[in-house]
Amino acid sequence: MPTRHATRRQSLLRLMQEQKLDAILVTDDTNVSYLTGFSGDSSYLLLTPKLAVVISDSRYTTQLQKECPELDRAIRDAGRALSELAGSVIQKSGVRKLGMESSSLPVDSLESISKHVPGVEWVGCPGLIESKLRSVKDEGEIAEIRQALVYAQEGFRQLKSMLSPRMTEFEASYELEHAMRKLGARGHAFPAIIAKGDRAAMPHYFPSQQPIGQSRLLLIDWGAETMSRYRCDLTRTLITAEPDDRLATVYGVVLEAQQLAMQAIGPGQSCKEIDAIARNFIADKEFGDYFGHGLGHGFGLKIHEQPRFSPLSNDVLEPGMVVTVEPGIYLPGWGGVRIEDNVLVTSAGHEVLSSLPSSFESAFCPLA
Amino acid sequence: MPTRHATRRQSLLRLMQEQKLDAILVTDDTNVSYLTGFSGDSSYLLLTPKLAVVISDSRYTTQLQKECPELDRAIRDAGRALSELAGSVIQKSGVRKLGMESSSLPVDSLESISKHVPGVEWVGCPGLIESKLRSVKDEGEIAEIRQALVYAQEGFRQLKSMLSPRMTEFEASYELEHAMRKLGARGHAFPAIIAKGDRAAMPHYFPSQQPIGQSRLLLIDWGAETMSRYRCDLTRTLITAEPDDRLATVYGVVLEAQQLAMQAIGPGQSCKEIDAIARNFIADKEFGDYFGHGLGHGFGLKIHEQPRFSPLSNDVLEPGMVVTVEPGIYLPGWGGVRIEDNVLVTSAGHEVLSSLPSSFESAFCPLA
Repeated sequence: MPTRHATRRQSLLRLMQEQKLDAILVTDDTNVSYLTGFSGDSSYLLLTPKLAVVISDSRYTTQLQKECPELDRAIRDAGRALSELAGSVIQKSGVRKLGMESSSLPVDSLESISKHVPGVEWVGCPGLIESKLRSVKDEGEIAEIRQALVYAQEGFRQLKSMLSPRMTEFEASYELEHAMRKLGARGHAFPAIIAKGDRAAMPHYFPSQQPIGQSRLLLIDWGAETMSRYRCDLTRTLITAEPDDRLATVYGVVLEAQQLAMQAIGPGQSCKEIDAIARNFIADKEFGDYFGHGLGHGFGLKIHEQPRFSPLSNDVLEPGMVVTVEPGIYLPGWGGVRIEDNVLVTSAGHEVLSSLPSSFESAFCPLA
Repeated sequence: MPTRHATRRQSLLRLMQEQKLDAILVTDDTNVSYLTGFSGDSSYLLLTPKLAVVISDSRYTTQLQKECPELDRAIRDAGRALSELAGSVIQKSGVRKLGMESSSLPVDSLESISKHVPGVEWVGCPGLIESKLRSVKDEGEIAEIRQALVYAQEGFRQLKSMLSPRMTEFEASYELEHAMRKLGARGHAFPAIIAKGDRAAMPHYFPSQQPIGQSRLLLIDWGAETMSRYRCDLTRTLITAEPDDRLATVYGVVLEAQQLAMQAIGPGQSCKEIDAIARNFIADKEFGDYFGHGLGHGFGLKIHEQPRFSPLSNDVLEPGMVVTVEPGIYLPGWGGVRIEDNVLVTSAGHEVLSSLPSSFESAFCPLA
């Protein structure tokens, strides 16, 4: 039985045939790892129908033998440039029409490799592996994401029990990471956003040194990363003091928008339309000017992957995609509410993978 | 008085004049931040003798006003691509000969910007800002690095008091990060390398889930990052059980090689020659085959910066450079010893910025 990495390379070869490519040079670290199982960096993969060669350096000789013994290796010494060795491997392979990861490959790297292979025709394949392969998760990947959710959700429960008015946003962030690591996580899936009161109106935010006490709400957007680097991405907005009427209204609108969008998720659905379900509902409640970002996104080895829920998206849902659903309403000077869960698209419809409660009542977390 | 960011832009303008450039498009996040004070990402800086424009998006409007009020801003909406707005700003500026950061700018980004400015001649400036500006630190940067060392050194002392035979390498890593954050650090300067026994023979290594007990030594390579993102980089090798004769010999050779190299540091010195001092000393002691990496490197906003100490380096030391000095001897199947300190090049010679003891006696840390 082929390994899951071999299966992925087979899928990539089929995509290359459609584009009439002889070969592809994979240069993005995460994509190399996804296609080979190699966990190091600074290495390329040259893939042709006959050949799969990892182009790396002598630091990684042992690791490559252990992590992907079925692949060929080309190893450079410290004195030789990666581009030169890559050029030599491409030259020997005799390929003419070569795909490249043009959305991440630097201008200089292409130039230095090209010098060694003057006859090659380079074809940009921006986001090919990300959009056509990594967007649909296999069983092993889904199991890893479920594990990330175990760490994230239990870490959040522990953080809630630790919160106090004098704790700063930044302290809450690192105590959360520490709790998730004790449970077995590698760490945060991304630097957590922990924003109190009116700061929660800023969708991107690094936790401050200000104490979380003396405000009505606390927005926590976090995730865990497993040891094999799969992630999850959740948000809860805690009500930390007596709420005003507006908070109850805003919370209710965000929650209902999220539930409506999640219920509509299934294979064949348009990501633009799922986005519109939440967006139109929020607009009908007259908060349309205060939801300024997309409804959600895929995730896995990276925190932002395909597909995207947004008014501009052309993506269509397929079984195996794993996405966030995270509407929000942000009122400048007042604060913001966002609720985010993680959903797997299945052949029958969908499965909500996250299980933390999100009702208005469950959000109460008074800071004594 | 100009801000330190304005001073840096003035220095860059002088470098551009030498290369007869009308302008430079700065696309690397760290370089944009270094030249402007802006702490966000996904933004460019167009710099000409008359103009300094940050090209960003609406998420960052408020943050840009706060962090770099003296600069012009071009802000795009969610529907417009960064490359299109950059093209439009370049077009309006009327520049003809434009420098780019070709060592990091992706092929596709260059192509999409170029489309909008067909008359422009692009000139690759690989590593210009890194090698000519960021390699020499100003007073504020040196103060930040000293602060990073306060966090790292005190964190290490606390970790030493926490070590126990059943603690895993990974636990030691995250307990160290947690301790440094409680002291005020943003976190690790890089994922710490914590390697027990024969694992210390691998120069690059991610901490495992194995307990640190039952081995002779524990290699710890770590650093702290300050809130304004300056870093430091240290290594100590702890002797965790009764050492054999070989450990005493190897430790002594590494320490003496390090001391000899550090003493030679001063302005005008060749980095290749400083590297050779340690390398030749280790070779004279017949461990020449077991020191397989460069002697050290600059650091600051990134953990690896210019200059580099290696047999291939053409760098020359200047006052204001801050470097690691980190020889090591790695014996496969036995283990490795590395000792690393941080040194500032001064006009009079040098100052060793780190102050943790490194004698053989100080390395004893028996795990009960």
